[in-house]
Amino acid sequence: MPTFTVTRRVAFSDTDMAGIVHFANFYRYLEEAEHAFFRQLGMRIIETQPDGRVIGWPRVRCSCSFTSPAYYEDLLDIHLSLTRIGVRSLTYGIRFQRGDTLIAQGDLKTVCCLCRPNHLESMDIPPEYLAKLEPWAADDA
Amino acid sequence: MPTFTVTRRVAFSDTDMAGIVHFANFYRYLEEAEHAFFRQLGMRIIETQPDGRVIGWPRVRCSCSFTSPAYYEDLLDIHLSLTRIGVRSLTYGIRFQRGDTLIAQGDLKTVCCLCRPNHLESMDIPPEYLAKLEPWAADDA
Amino acid sequence: MPTFTVTRRVAFSDTDMAGIVHFANFYRYLEEAEHAFFRQLGMRIIETQPDGRVIGWPRVRCSCSFTSPAYYEDLLDIHLSLTRIGVRSLTYGIRFQRGDTLIAQGDLKTVCCLCRPNHLESMDIPPEYLAKLEPWAADDA
Amino acid sequence: MPTFTVTRRVAFSDTDMAGIVHFANFYRYLEEAEHAFFRQLGMRIIETQPDGRVIGWPRVRCSCSFTSPAYYEDLLDIHLSLTRIGVRSLTYGIRFQRGDTLIAQGDLKTVCCLCRPNHLESMDIPPEYLAKLEPWAADDA
Repeated sequence: MPTFTVTRRVAFSDTDMAGIVHFANFYRYLEEAEHAFFRQLGMRIIETQPDGRVIGWPRVRCSCSFTSPAYYEDLLDIHLSLTRIGVRSLTYGIRFQRGDTLIAQGDLKTVCCLCRPNHLESMDIPPEYLAKLEPWAADDA
Repeated sequence: MPTFTVTRRVAFSDTDMAGIVHFANFYRYLEEAEHAFFRQLGMRIIETQPDGRVIGWPRVRCSCSFTSPAYYEDLLDIHLSLTRIGVRSLTYGIRFQRGDTLIAQGDLKTVCCLCRPNHLESMDIPPEYLAKLEPWAADDA
Repeated sequence: MPTFTVTRRVAFSDTDMAGIVHFANFYRYLEEAEHAFFRQLGMRIIETQPDGRVIGWPRVRCSCSFTSPAYYEDLLDIHLSLTRIGVRSLTYGIRFQRGDTLIAQGDLKTVCCLCRPNHLESMDIPPEYLAKLEPWAADDA
Repeated sequence: MPTFTVTRRVAFSDTDMAGIVHFANFYRYLEEAEHAFFRQLGMRIIETQPDGRVIGWPRVRCSCSFTSPAYYEDLLDIHLSLTRIGVRSLTYGIRFQRGDTLIAQGDLKTVCCLCRPNHLESMDIPPEYLAKLEPWAADDA
């Protein structure tokens, strides 16, 4: 399965009084990997179309399992794979490692939406997005 | 099932450029509910024992599903229930509502740990903790 | 000088590996006090006018001095006073205390702005805002 | 004056509903620059000494002026200079730019401290730290 990887250094402000990365930060980290993935495809996670419509990708579901703590200044590799392309949604598998040590893993489901002020409305993923995403899909996605 | 509820006002800094609460903040919110639950039981999420040992509750797994967006200044009710008491772990069900509107729901599994510098080691939940937690357990927990 | 006070409990996620509240969180805390101040005046920090214009209050300058650390579960009193009302700006003095202990103090200058997508433009504070703010101004403001 | 520069991409989670980087994040950004500066000197912002003592650098004062908003995906250059080396303190000047556009600038004063559980005690900056810092000091520092 094709995998997209970013590396992230743990900031001091990401730690808590237990001396480890506070778990809520992993959700920010995995989103940064998702957005870097979009960026290298020439896409943006929130994008104004030529016709003025704004397309975004709100989160539908996100889960993480935490195996080993991460510490200040750790370099974390965040591996992202596109496990499913739905008609209106994308599902990613995400794996955090420090070298060979598994830190955490999870999955994220997002849905393609038309974003209006105070209103989100799901829509089919546009064909020009699909064309960019499909080479990254798992064989069985 | 006994439910513990806290109410939380959405801060401006919790929103993102899509105009809604950024999803990573829900993990901070649910943790605040968990910690308030401990506090009203006379417990602390990280506690130095008389013998100097430090007992903490690192997260093992956390997932959330997002149903409806939350906005700046919303008052969110965060309902927490203790769905399972294991030998070394606690599992919570969490539900975010704004009035009758379901915003998000999820679950959180934590494990009782001896916290040493750079090392976490799981341990059985001490009996004095169990005595406080059990009245809050689901019937089938 | 009239003072507006909110009380804030320190969250676990606001601490860092030094065991104290990470300093960047004080800027979120003081903003929460500012926004609560607006709310009790029947104002909003970002407000769509009947004519569709959006008025907001971006930060121009903010400074803090840190005197004593704050810890997990501390109850902090955040005292806010309106030290100056300018034609287009507001300046606040802010003081964080835990009981009688001074934790930090600072000041915040904000400017009244017309908010357009990708553009902020300063404007005179509207009279209906001034009417609500003036009773809170320092005598020499 | 010698200047140390890091580049930082604005994360989506750093924006707020006004569509710009929330100001509290600039304090995290400038701290990341400070810590990268320490790291390239072979130092750590929190460091356990061979004798078990922990030396850290809590913030004494930090201020920022905000000139121009920053947006999602902006690449910000954060320029840090060591404007003063005191007996127990360091003062930095910090400047955020996007290309030639000034975004924000500020200063940060930190104090060298012995960190004990629930207690911080200022101390003279150790000579081995000074030896690394002095080549970066402003001529008149």
